[in-house]
Order: sequence, then C-alpha cells, then structure tokens
Amino acid sequence: MTSPSSASSVVTAAMLAIGDELLSGRTKDKNIGHLADLLTLSGIDLKEVRIVADEEDAIVEALNALRARYTYVFTSGGIGPTHDDITADAVSKAFGVPCIHDPKAMELLAAMYKRREMEFTETRQRMARMPEGARHIPNPVSTAPGFVIENVYVMAGVPQVFQAMIDNVLPTLKTGAKILSRAIACPYGEGDIGTLLGAIQKAHPETSIGSYPKYDGQRFSTELVVRARDADVLEAAAQAVVAMIADLDRAKAKPNPTAEA
Amino acid sequence: MTSPSSASSVVTAAMLAIGDELLSGRTKDKNIGHLADLLTLSGIDLKEVRIVADEEDAIVEALNALRARYTYVFTSGGIGPTHDDITADAVSKAFGVPCIHDPKAMELLAAMYKRREMEFTETRQRMARMPEGARHIPNPVSTAPGFVIENVYVMAGVPQVFQAMIDNVLPTLKTGAKILSRAIACPYGEGDIGTLLGAIQKAHPETSIGSYPKYDGQRFSTELVVRARDADVLEAAAQAVVAMIADLDRAKAKPNPTAEA
Repeated sequence: MTSPSSASSVVTAAMLAIGDELLSGRTKDKNIGHLADLLTLSGIDLKEVRIVADEEDAIVEALNALRARYTYVFTSGGIGPTHDDITADAVSKAFGVPCIHDPKAMELLAAMYKRREMEFTETRQRMARMPEGARHIPNPVSTAPGFVIENVYVMAGVPQVFQAMIDNVLPTLKTGAKILSRAIACPYGEGDIGTLLGAIQKAHPETSIGSYPKYDGQRFSTELVVRARDADVLEAAAQAVVAMIADLDRAKAKPNPTAEA
Repeated sequence: MTSPSSASSVVTAAMLAIGDELLSGRTKDKNIGHLADLLTLSGIDLKEVRIVADEEDAIVEALNALRARYTYVFTSGGIGPTHDDITADAVSKAFGVPCIHDPKAMELLAAMYKRREMEFTETRQRMARMPEGARHIPNPVSTAPGFVIENVYVMAGVPQVFQAMIDNVLPTLKTGAKILSRAIACPYGEGDIGTLLGAIQKAHPETSIGSYPKYDGQRFSTELVVRARDADVLEAAAQAVVAMIADLDRAKAKPNPTAEA
C-alpha cells in the first residue's frame, strides 16, 4: 500500500515474544494475535514479530534490531522470578544500562507480600529487577510490574497479565491514522479472480487488498479484505470488488458456482 | 542448556511466516505451533520464528538472515495465485536467481485443471512460479506444489496444506538428538521455588529446566519442564525436582497450600 500524503501519521510496531516454551510447541502463543488485533484497532501498524528463546544474546540482538527500526517494540515473557526469566537482564544489556532492583517495584511487591503474610524472598525480589531508568507498566492482575524504557514495552508472558498490561499501555501511545478495512465474501476461488483483482489493486494504489482462500472440503471460496486509511478511498475500491463479483456472477449465469483456485 | 559432547548432532531451524493478515490479527497463525511440535518430536531445534508482511524487502531480509544462521528455514504463506502472493519472487531475489514458471509444476497444474474441465488461466499459472533450480514439495491437498531451494522450504499458509506439506518434508531432513522432556506439576508458585530450582538447574547444566506459572483465578501453581538430550541426565534432574517438591510439602506440612508467586 503506498503511503498517503500524511506519511508522518504512520506509527509502526514490532513484537518480540520471548520463551523456550513457544519454540518447543509446549505453549501456543496467544499474545501475538491479541496484540495484532489491538494495534490494528489503534491505528498502529504491526510490521514484524519475532519469537526467540530465553537466551540473552538472542534477545539482545533481536531487540536492538527491532527498536531501531519501529516506533514501538512490545515484548512478552521472561519477567517472572525464576532462573530462566532473563528478560530484564537482556533488555538492560541491550540498552547498556545496569539492571537493578527498582526501589518502587520493591516497595510494591514488599507491601503485597506483607498483606498476604508471605516472605518477600530473594527469588520474589527478582521480579523487581529492571533496567535503571525504566518506568513501570502497572499489573492489576498480579502486581509485579512490567517496564518501559525508551520505545520498548516489556510485559509478562501469561496471557491474562499481558492483556491487562497492554490495556494500560495503549492509551499512552501515539497512534497513526487507523487502517479501515472491509471484508467481502467471494464465492469464487483465487484462481478465478486473480487477474481481475490484481487490476483493481493497481487501479487503487492507496489500498491494500488481501485475498484469503477458504476451502470447506468441497468448494473453494475467498475472503477479500480491502484496507485503506481513507474512507472514500476504501469505498471506491470496495465497490470495484463488489462489481467484479457481480460481473463474474453474470458471466457464469449462476450465483454460486463450484469454483476452485 | 550446555551442549553435550555430541554437538554435531544439533540440527537447528527457523520459521518465517509471511502474511499481512497475520500482522493485522485477522488470521491467528496455527502453523508456528504445529511446526514447533513436529520439530521437537523430530529432534530439530526451532531457534527463532519471524512473522513478516507480504513485502519483498521484508521477506528477502528476514530470509537471508535466517538461512545463513540455521540448518533449515521453513516459510509459510504467499504462494497462492493472487497479486499479494509474492513469496516465490522474494525467495528468488534472496537467492539471486530468476523466478520462473517451473515446467513440471506447469504440467501438474495443467493436468489438474484439464481433469476438472477448468481453464488454466494466467492467474492460476502463477502457482507454478518458483526460483530456478528449486525442487517441489508435494501438495496432496490442492496440487500446487511448495518448493525447496538449498536449506529453505517454502510452503502454503493454509493450515491444511501446510501440514500436508511438512508431513512430506520431515522424513527427508536430517535430525539431531531428540530433546527429551518431562513435565512435573508443582503446587507451589514460582516465588516459592525459584531459589531451589535455580540451584537444581546449576547442578544439572546439561538440562534446561523451564518454569511456567499457572493461575486459576485463586491459586498460583507451576508447571516445571525438565529437558535434556540424555535420558539418564533427564532422570537425575527430574528426581531432584520431585525431591524439591516433597521437601516443600514436608516443610509446609500440608500437601497443597495456597501459594503465590
């Protein structure tokens, strides 16, 4: 999609999901899809996602690549109290700052454990570790805060906590012009519509038209998604797509032929 | 996890999932988790996953980074017939070879459309495009083949097709020593076990012990996963973990205290 003249309104993001369990398949990630939905609604363009292991070098390298390139980077995972939770150290290393027990986080957590009449052990204190100078991301679910340093937002991996944290973060971000979209069901397979659709895309360069094949075991159909930042631009392209489908209906002289990609 | 002396048996992989719809949230990826499961069973270490848009530069850059670093790279998405399916072109560019209509793929597809009494249109012919010199990955679901060039395996995005293609690919790969794992349920939160678990990890360096918090709305517990390539090494570490939990039980004098990270 070519950029509209208001290119300065494009706000981009990347996500870095951290965790051996994501790469082994033991945990099926839910945070990526959730974040993608929210960012789309917020007018922020998620451009890249990476999943890496709980390994310092891997996290540092990926983080430094992503934070230089996109407006915002969101990370999930590795901020719990156990020995395999190394995200705070890795992020500190990426920024070249000390990783410290943040005093306010220590207070928050100490107060919580006191209320629950439990010991604030050395292990639990690990959850207060963050890069020196980082600010908290509140955690209304389980208290231990995430943190933000420059354009990097570091959050938990547990989906319930990740979602609560991102809900707190989103209102603080600058957002770009929102991508509007319209989904149009098409009873024809991609093979039937490809050339016509390509012509529509060319004629409407400020849109991005996606084509997603569906197969119900017998018949191919397609979901067409037209995206644009401008409502009039979107409408024009959507009408062209609807007209294309109507033309195909007339040409085939039946409303829902069995077609195949 | 430190490498065992048979370091040459470590076979690594990366996955590159391609598709605007994955980044917008419209499609929730299912292929990453599926591939992760299969590779773990096969003894291949998935080390990194990236999700990028249907944009040539993004695909080329990610592919070139990943294929230089890991034994195998698996891609999903973008090999259909429509204008937004640009993976074949991007992979060709990454390798610096022409993107051609592969003759054997053309034959396969032509025969299929002939059987179905449908026209083998220019759009449908796009599905035969691949880098010059690539070999086919068979597609028993919908005929249009994926392809492999050097260590890069390019497959469909539609989960049904991706799964069928990877089933055909896996038996052809070299596999490393398989990672064995054992999951141990732990009724205590991460905060209770962190120091002890860290000590066990240190004492068993040829294992990787993961700790995954669970929260049922009231109580925290933890799933502990011990991984190793050697069964005896795994057994020793697992026994240490079981003993740790038993010690905690005795210390707290009740089998399932309410604990919190």
